[in-house]
Amino acid sequence: MYAFGVDIGGTTVKMGLFDQNANVLDKWEIPTRKENGGEAILPDVAKAILSKMEEKGITADQVKGIGVGAPGAVDEEGTMVGGAVNLGWGVLNIPEILHKFIDVPVKANNDANVAALGEMWQGGGKGYSNMVAVTLGTGVGGGIIVNGKILTGATGAGGEIGHIHLEDNETESCGCKKKGCLEQYASATGIVRLANRRLAKDDAPSALRGGEVSAKTVFDAVKAGDAVAIEIAEQFGDYLGKGLAAVAAVVNPEVFVIGGGVSKAGEILLSYVKPAFAKYVFYPCGKAEFKLATLGNDAGIFGAAALILK
Amino acid sequence: MYAFGVDIGGTTVKMGLFDQNANVLDKWEIPTRKENGGEAILPDVAKAILSKMEEKGITADQVKGIGVGAPGAVDEEGTMVGGAVNLGWGVLNIPEILHKFIDVPVKANNDANVAALGEMWQGGGKGYSNMVAVTLGTGVGGGIIVNGKILTGATGAGGEIGHIHLEDNETESCGCKKKGCLEQYASATGIVRLANRRLAKDDAPSALRGGEVSAKTVFDAVKAGDAVAIEIAEQFGDYLGKGLAAVAAVVNPEVFVIGGGVSKAGEILLSYVKPAFAKYVFYPCGKAEFKLATLGNDAGIFGAAALILK
Repeated sequence: MYAFGVDIGGTTVKMGLFDQNANVLDKWEIPTRKENGGEAILPDVAKAILSKMEEKGITADQVKGIGVGAPGAVDEEGTMVGGAVNLGWGVLNIPEILHKFIDVPVKANNDANVAALGEMWQGGGKGYSNMVAVTLGTGVGGGIIVNGKILTGATGAGGEIGHIHLEDNETESCGCKKKGCLEQYASATGIVRLANRRLAKDDAPSALRGGEVSAKTVFDAVKAGDAVAIEIAEQFGDYLGKGLAAVAAVVNPEVFVIGGGVSKAGEILLSYVKPAFAKYVFYPCGKAEFKLATLGNDAGIFGAAALILK
Repeated sequence: MYAFGVDIGGTTVKMGLFDQNANVLDKWEIPTRKENGGEAILPDVAKAILSKMEEKGITADQVKGIGVGAPGAVDEEGTMVGGAVNLGWGVLNIPEILHKFIDVPVKANNDANVAALGEMWQGGGKGYSNMVAVTLGTGVGGGIIVNGKILTGATGAGGEIGHIHLEDNETESCGCKKKGCLEQYASATGIVRLANRRLAKDDAPSALRGGEVSAKTVFDAVKAGDAVAIEIAEQFGDYLGKGLAAVAAVVNPEVFVIGGGVSKAGEILLSYVKPAFAKYVFYPCGKAEFKLATLGNDAGIFGAAALILK
């Protein structure tokens, strides 16, 4: 038996063919055709799967199912309840559309949640069943796994931890229009915000002055012992540790798995988050471990396959 | 078929006999004997159930099970993982002990979680399956229900929302030893803290001056239009709304059900929480409703029975 994992993004759709033992037998991408309300995307996915089945000599009764991750709120029935702006989609039901082309079970969920499931199944969270995945990228995303299952939430917005309010004194607005969200300090752009504010505060010497500041240059400077960069990392760690302590008081996970572009800084990033977490966390929730994500861009196809195989 | 709901508290054990249709056929209490590490508590519970069965002519094969709520962290197997200070208990497994006396299925969970399940089953959260129960009493407790099931957490500390950190400038310590927890502002004692601080700030006239201040006197004064009391209620609402907005970003519930002694203030309490929640919540999670708990002290026996019957 086989399963397909499909990770629909705004530019490409990543696809994987898996066997029952979680091995990726094949991995490929197709372009995401967003024109006309993205009406071609799911038919394209179905065609790509059917042609892969033909290529490999796989029949429909050998396919246990297709798992799909998509960028937006997806309810338990696989409906994009608020559509998907990045794909041009309005409200639609993913399994229903795929079933017009191919008669195998289909399950769908939000892409961040699916990536979380992938990290638990075969990545940084392997061996755990109560996990919070934290994605530090352009924004801050999250995916919560309780007893091995994605916490979808009433409107598909479970795990949107980037929008926990942490700062009453913020003057700039978050992408969500509120002020003071975790995302404004712990995302790649958030770290740049913290860095620029710190650099503007005084004339303390720093390798960060003069060039373009990014999450990468900040953590590179931290690794080189730059005192100003270390202050910025401490501030980042304080916000993220405080936010994750709030998450821990709610869902009491075994492990946080930190991924996304910012996490490429490596273990040093965790060294700023863990002490802040310990400072703020309710002690019975304080045993949560911190791990780095390991699947990178493949977390989505793994998690999508896990919707079927796990 | 019947079920027993058992709610073990520090002073009394509340017990209920239920039929399959969620009707309470009988309801009674026995004292909680805490001496000698509370070793008599569970044998007493078993004896009370056996004698009730005899009284009613109920045989063991007519008992679908016994549900138990206990004050401490309880894991999925019914083990009090950290013991129960208020009962004198060390680590013990509740089903294992009860099975020495009576051979029917036993399920156990934390008392706040069980009360949450009770409110969902037959109380303020009836008709919902994704719910957060908030208990505003001496402390602030919580219970989280996801798809109809209690979110227990890795160490039984799921839903401990009273210990979300909200205030960096707090100088007093919470019961948990940290500073700035939601509980320090939204519990009965928290409201008194806010009130005393507000009253000390200036000489503004208020009905609250002179007498003893409590959550009840504050909300009574709010109802009478007292401007100072209204300020205190707004501050309370701001903290609680901010904390619940964080909870909503994590678990995205359909409804918050507010109970505990403080909630006796009634709907007026919600009128201070809802606008603050709207101010801080991530918009896709903002549709959550607010209801008052309706089962009062019976939430525990209902929820314990729901562990078996639902």
